[in-house]
Amino acid sequence: MTCDQLPSPALLPPGFIDLLPVDAQAEANGTQALLSVFASHGYERVAPPLLEFEDTLLGGAGAALADQAFRLMDPDTRRMMALRPDITPQIARIAATRLRATSRPLRLSYAGQTVLVGNGTAGQNERQIGQAGIELIGPDSAHADAEVIGVVAEALARVGITDLSFDLTMPPLVPSLIGQAGLPPTAATALMHALDRKDAAAVAEHGGSIADTLIKLLSAAGEADQALAALQAADLPEVARSFSERLMQSAAAIRARVPGCQVTIDPVEFRGWKYHTGVCVSVYALGSQEELGRGGRYLCNDDEPACGLTLRPNAVFRAAPRGPHPPRVYLPFGTDEAVGRILREQGHVTVAGLQFHASEEDEARRLACSFLSRNGTLVPVT
Amino acid sequence: MTCDQLPSPALLPPGFIDLLPVDAQAEANGTQALLSVFASHGYERVAPPLLEFEDTLLGGAGAALADQAFRLMDPDTRRMMALRPDITPQIARIAATRLRATSRPLRLSYAGQTVLVGNGTAGQNERQIGQAGIELIGPDSAHADAEVIGVVAEALARVGITDLSFDLTMPPLVPSLIGQAGLPPTAATALMHALDRKDAAAVAEHGGSIADTLIKLLSAAGEADQALAALQAADLPEVARSFSERLMQSAAAIRARVPGCQVTIDPVEFRGWKYHTGVCVSVYALGSQEELGRGGRYLCNDDEPACGLTLRPNAVFRAAPRGPHPPRVYLPFGTDEAVGRILREQGHVTVAGLQFHASEEDEARRLACSFLSRNGTLVPVT
Repeated sequence: MTCDQLPSPALLPPGFIDLLPVDAQAEANGTQALLSVFASHGYERVAPPLLEFEDTLLGGAGAALADQAFRLMDPDTRRMMALRPDITPQIARIAATRLRATSRPLRLSYAGQTVLVGNGTAGQNERQIGQAGIELIGPDSAHADAEVIGVVAEALARVGITDLSFDLTMPPLVPSLIGQAGLPPTAATALMHALDRKDAAAVAEHGGSIADTLIKLLSAAGEADQALAALQAADLPEVARSFSERLMQSAAAIRARVPGCQVTIDPVEFRGWKYHTGVCVSVYALGSQEELGRGGRYLCNDDEPACGLTLRPNAVFRAAPRGPHPPRVYLPFGTDEAVGRILREQGHVTVAGLQFHASEEDEARRLACSFLSRNGTLVPVT
Repeated sequence: MTCDQLPSPALLPPGFIDLLPVDAQAEANGTQALLSVFASHGYERVAPPLLEFEDTLLGGAGAALADQAFRLMDPDTRRMMALRPDITPQIARIAATRLRATSRPLRLSYAGQTVLVGNGTAGQNERQIGQAGIELIGPDSAHADAEVIGVVAEALARVGITDLSFDLTMPPLVPSLIGQAGLPPTAATALMHALDRKDAAAVAEHGGSIADTLIKLLSAAGEADQALAALQAADLPEVARSFSERLMQSAAAIRARVPGCQVTIDPVEFRGWKYHTGVCVSVYALGSQEELGRGGRYLCNDDEPACGLTLRPNAVFRAAPRGPHPPRVYLPFGTDEAVGRILREQGHVTVAGLQFHASEEDEARRLACSFLSRNGTLVPVT
């Protein structure tokens, strides 16, 4: 593409945007609200840097996003650095190094920007993506899974999103089932593709001894009760059974913790998850197709149980209702400083005149103020 | 340097750090407090991206920091992008393009991260630097200069920094004086170096007809009254006189607007400013050598008057007193959800137990809680 095809009048690269006044303030206020709920549950804020050495940032859990990270040469150390495509692996690094000696459960929260190389679809996909999330490091239990989801539900309620759907998956379940079934490699591959396309006929064709089980689980995906009944009834070998039982326990704990929410379960979904090793979740506002966040269970530093959930503030604030704007009051040039101070303490925004104007009303209107201060009283500007 | 000389146990590149719990929360709270004061004065939040095309980001006012910007190839457009080393030129771009039609004075605020290539001094200089600031675009007056400084003083007071020093300079004054003096180029260069070193003897040697004036201004640098008296008395040609008068007017307006602050003036300082065209300011907490922020007057898009000031949250929160931490309350496993909700509404941080413990007091202590909730009442943990 050439530069005259760029969508932005300011010639920003595709996927990067300027947030203008109302949107930027809404996102800042909302992110602050989410983080204050996280903090109130003991999730302490950490702030890793935007850049790290490539081998640190993209090793371990970070490797899953290595093809999405921009690289930079550090002229100082002559080593390659990378811009973070995801914050969770950085939090895991901090937990495993600088906070190694801190008591578990370790509860951490964060908010910041990530940058993705993107998929070349000009203008369609965001490449700078904000993240705001929590990680609960140490415990491996359904109660821990439910705490993470419960805290996120409370945070979303704080910004006005109360009708939520949590879509649960257990990515290692299907691979474990296929691995134990003793299928020839070509059949296993064909089966994975069939499951990925939700193609029941192809599952029947390639599924061998586990075809019936997989088709039942495939058709049970959806509302939690029917999915849980199908999982309960499924004839599963031992390892797959343990994944299934944990998924059932976590679903029950989540429904107890967030009673009003919708829970759906797709027991055979396994794609789209990177470094996750247990129950995973995607969060949606009911009636919206846009994912507000995602997360799940993983191993921190390859050995410590952890569960986290990361919201995308951009998506959250497209879904959230906008609060009222504080009233703007125009202070004509020469207005006493104390008048403005009192108005600001009362929650008004004051806009100071920097010179006299023939009509202060006109000036107030021009500056989008709904009031004008005159002799210490507020005069509406119509 | 090799990696085993790196100061961080987590192998971060020099100049990049992890902010850990207490510091990260203090910086986030403080930045939020600064921005809320900016917003209360009508400075509306905008959020430009971390990356732009190199020619957009580093053209115009941005050119001054071009040698400090990391470059990246965009695989999508095959054009070079750059990580922002400064946010102010981005705000100027937004004002000149997307907000071109918005009424002036245009008041904008911002907070975000910048990344500098750095100077190769391992571990000594920060290379990821937060910025939080305001830009007042449109008016060119001493009152506008004073508003910017007054709003920043109020914001710093909000985070507990009340004893401030504003150090004013007028970078174009000396170059204009030297330009009008008709010195031979070698003498002019020698004179600039002498002024830069504050070397009065060398100023006398190379200063020709303006040596006496420059020495008087050089020796007047410091507390505002003496500097203003020396500027008033100085025999200046017309252009330099207009710079001097504007500096005097702005100093007077600033002292009237922020009566308690210390104002110092260095009339002959001209280095260290990049795209600035008028009065400039550095902000310090009294008794500290670390600059909290800087700014001044420049031309937005090369033609529109503007004045801004950018604080460095990292520096601000090293200087600011730390607020008290909200009390942490341990909720033993099985505590009713409503108990935690009420405690959080009261401003407590709650830390939920995820399983039963033989001694809940020990568990509370281990998790740094100062209280434990038992049957709905708070029990101190000693």
